[in-house]
Amino acid sequence: MHTRASSDRCFIAETVAIGSELLVGGRSDSNSLVITEKLGAYGIEVRFKSIVGDNRTDIMNALTTAVQRAGIIVITGGLGPTVDDCTREAVADATGRRLARRKEAFEGMVARLAQWGRRPNKGQLRQAMIPSGATVMPNPVGSAPGFAVFWKRAVLVALPGVPREMDAMMEQSVIPFLTAQLERSATPRRSPIVRRVFHTWGLPEADVDAKLKGLFSKQIPIDLGLLASPTGVLVSLTSNVRRSSGAVKIERLAEQVRQRLGEWLYAEGQDTMEAVVGRLLLQQGRTVAVAESCTGGLISHRLTQVPGSSAYVDRGAVCYSNRAKTEMLGVPAELIVRHGAVSHEVAAAMAKGVRERAAVSVGLSVTGIAGPGGGAETKPVGLVYVGLDGGAGDVVTREFRFHGDRLTIKQRSSQAALDLLRRWLLNRATR
Amino acid sequence: MHTRASSDRCFIAETVAIGSELLVGGRSDSNSLVITEKLGAYGIEVRFKSIVGDNRTDIMNALTTAVQRAGIIVITGGLGPTVDDCTREAVADATGRRLARRKEAFEGMVARLAQWGRRPNKGQLRQAMIPSGATVMPNPVGSAPGFAVFWKRAVLVALPGVPREMDAMMEQSVIPFLTAQLERSATPRRSPIVRRVFHTWGLPEADVDAKLKGLFSKQIPIDLGLLASPTGVLVSLTSNVRRSSGAVKIERLAEQVRQRLGEWLYAEGQDTMEAVVGRLLLQQGRTVAVAESCTGGLISHRLTQVPGSSAYVDRGAVCYSNRAKTEMLGVPAELIVRHGAVSHEVAAAMAKGVRERAAVSVGLSVTGIAGPGGGAETKPVGLVYVGLDGGAGDVVTREFRFHGDRLTIKQRSSQAALDLLRRWLLNRATR
Repeated sequence: MHTRASSDRCFIAETVAIGSELLVGGRSDSNSLVITEKLGAYGIEVRFKSIVGDNRTDIMNALTTAVQRAGIIVITGGLGPTVDDCTREAVADATGRRLARRKEAFEGMVARLAQWGRRPNKGQLRQAMIPSGATVMPNPVGSAPGFAVFWKRAVLVALPGVPREMDAMMEQSVIPFLTAQLERSATPRRSPIVRRVFHTWGLPEADVDAKLKGLFSKQIPIDLGLLASPTGVLVSLTSNVRRSSGAVKIERLAEQVRQRLGEWLYAEGQDTMEAVVGRLLLQQGRTVAVAESCTGGLISHRLTQVPGSSAYVDRGAVCYSNRAKTEMLGVPAELIVRHGAVSHEVAAAMAKGVRERAAVSVGLSVTGIAGPGGGAETKPVGLVYVGLDGGAGDVVTREFRFHGDRLTIKQRSSQAALDLLRRWLLNRATR
Repeated sequence: MHTRASSDRCFIAETVAIGSELLVGGRSDSNSLVITEKLGAYGIEVRFKSIVGDNRTDIMNALTTAVQRAGIIVITGGLGPTVDDCTREAVADATGRRLARRKEAFEGMVARLAQWGRRPNKGQLRQAMIPSGATVMPNPVGSAPGFAVFWKRAVLVALPGVPREMDAMMEQSVIPFLTAQLERSATPRRSPIVRRVFHTWGLPEADVDAKLKGLFSKQIPIDLGLLASPTGVLVSLTSNVRRSSGAVKIERLAEQVRQRLGEWLYAEGQDTMEAVVGRLLLQQGRTVAVAESCTGGLISHRLTQVPGSSAYVDRGAVCYSNRAKTEMLGVPAELIVRHGAVSHEVAAAMAKGVRERAAVSVGLSVTGIAGPGGGAETKPVGLVYVGLDGGAGDVVTREFRFHGDRLTIKQRSSQAALDLLRRWLLNRATR
């Protein structure tokens, strides 16, 4: 049992993020995401994440907790040159080691700074102080070196909090160090933790859940996750290393998920709606122009987030005023008066106008009420019309009633418009 | 000493966020930010944040750790209707209490669901199971009730992970509950933890630091924080309750920080560049139109994020192709040939073109190379020109050389353009 337990332990990891700004700011913790992915490739599971401020006692406290439950502890942050940065001291305190200037840490730092034409200042000299007996992890992109120490039954790694530096050091030093340790201790290898992510748009969470009914059971070592967001419901499959290796089965299950989700599935993994639409446009040699009212430029911004999008995005018209709709797109002023700016008719006229003026294959449009003001009983906040004009009378419009704040309504409107374009392009491809 | 320690303890809080998706997703943890702010108003400091998956043993483990170091533990998540949600069970296990269906929790849930025309399903019935002796915290916007229990020397509160529900319950139940406890125990009140945030644009972090030199010392119970981001350097002042009450001094220091930062300071607190620019436009009765190339609609999207922006934003032209620049804005084709699309001259012509066509007070433009492709030795990725045309020959253009990925360059370009507009408007106001 003891061997089993300690063999398990070296596959349990904890991340400890250090920095007082992390306690007060609502920032996305991209570091622990990267660490989770990189360790997962070796079957190592991040099961705990801790966040503490730049406080020596609090950091010690967090490390003492971590060593009781994890075999791999990855600290990020607190290795900088200012007096606030006290990760080095806290690790020395917790592990009962002395801090001393280490030759390889010092020389690496001096060499790095020399490349930038600088010499280490007093604060940076502190960065070469490393707990005794620790292995130095060189920093190929910044000045602060990291280090690794063995402590109780765990490996403790300390890395800078700057994402680019942390990322490079995980790849170049931490992963080779950890895999060498696993090999030395003759620990049986584990299958990687495999994760597949599916992005859907247009179905409520309960309907996505219903579509997947019966595919999952406690017997299958793969966990299903559903997560609702303004841009749709995200479905994740994750191999559960605690039940058994799921590396083989996940592909078969992923294929079943794909079939069940069908047309509602728009992208997988890191792929995005705008990238999917972009590839379809490129494949079909089509070009697009966008006319936006309530989304205010968000659709154009998303389409042009894709590198190379200048090959198929010609232009976007953000026509916030009614006059702009008429002048930029030729929407008849009497059409706006008769149906209102937020209507099927104006959405169709905007899409046609931008297609014709830009001389592109397809025009896409949105008009709606993003709120919080501007709503009325017949046309409430969240009422949105999306339009598409493919030429030769090929016109589609759709009505949506979205909920949420201004940004949420803009996000959902942009997603609805891009999805309309995606489906239209898919139909054209299979004809 | 014991009284002092236990009095201190009730001002130390820990958040425990529960959900396996939080371990793998790089999501921003907005819940703990809200909790930090709301508790800070009563001098209660969130000093630890923990994140664990939907695993009964791991949650128990996290709670056992938390109770050793914090007097207030706020759990979010894991109260949903599915079998994965096991916060209730883990709290019962950790605190040695039984779970039982509670009348007030059940009735509140039934009443809430009835409003939506639904009846509780089997999973939702589980949501009425509450640890014995706990105080039920009603959920005014969702089905899952929360609860609070006394455990060892701490108060443990469990809330749903849905931000809107958590937020409402913190306000309506948790804060009144905690303040009543503090009163009952006759604990001396503490000054609120005060935080002031200043947003700067245009200066590197080291220069911001230099401007603030000498204002802060270990004698002043106010902590200074600097944080670099794509939209500038953020400066924060936070009263340090562990040193002494800083409530009075912070305003004087904030005023000194304002003076030192001067024109580089564009907003404070939750305020944004686009809101600041919007207020200036409204105050001066001016209108704006935007011509964007490399930012692809991001500036228009940001300007129209402000409620009521339709009063001063007339239109935006996203002219990705050279033809669009000529057709939409009247930029002479030979100007583009002579100077290149990415040039002072074309930025100026775009700003003039959009101002004239939209008949607004001021035209704003951006043209640049967002990358990763499209760069050349003379015109590298990150080269960006920003232009402004105020009519009657009042033209300003600026050249920037930004670093980073496509999104970062777009963000920095949009910030540079909006800041140019802000400074131009400020100059007009004081004339």
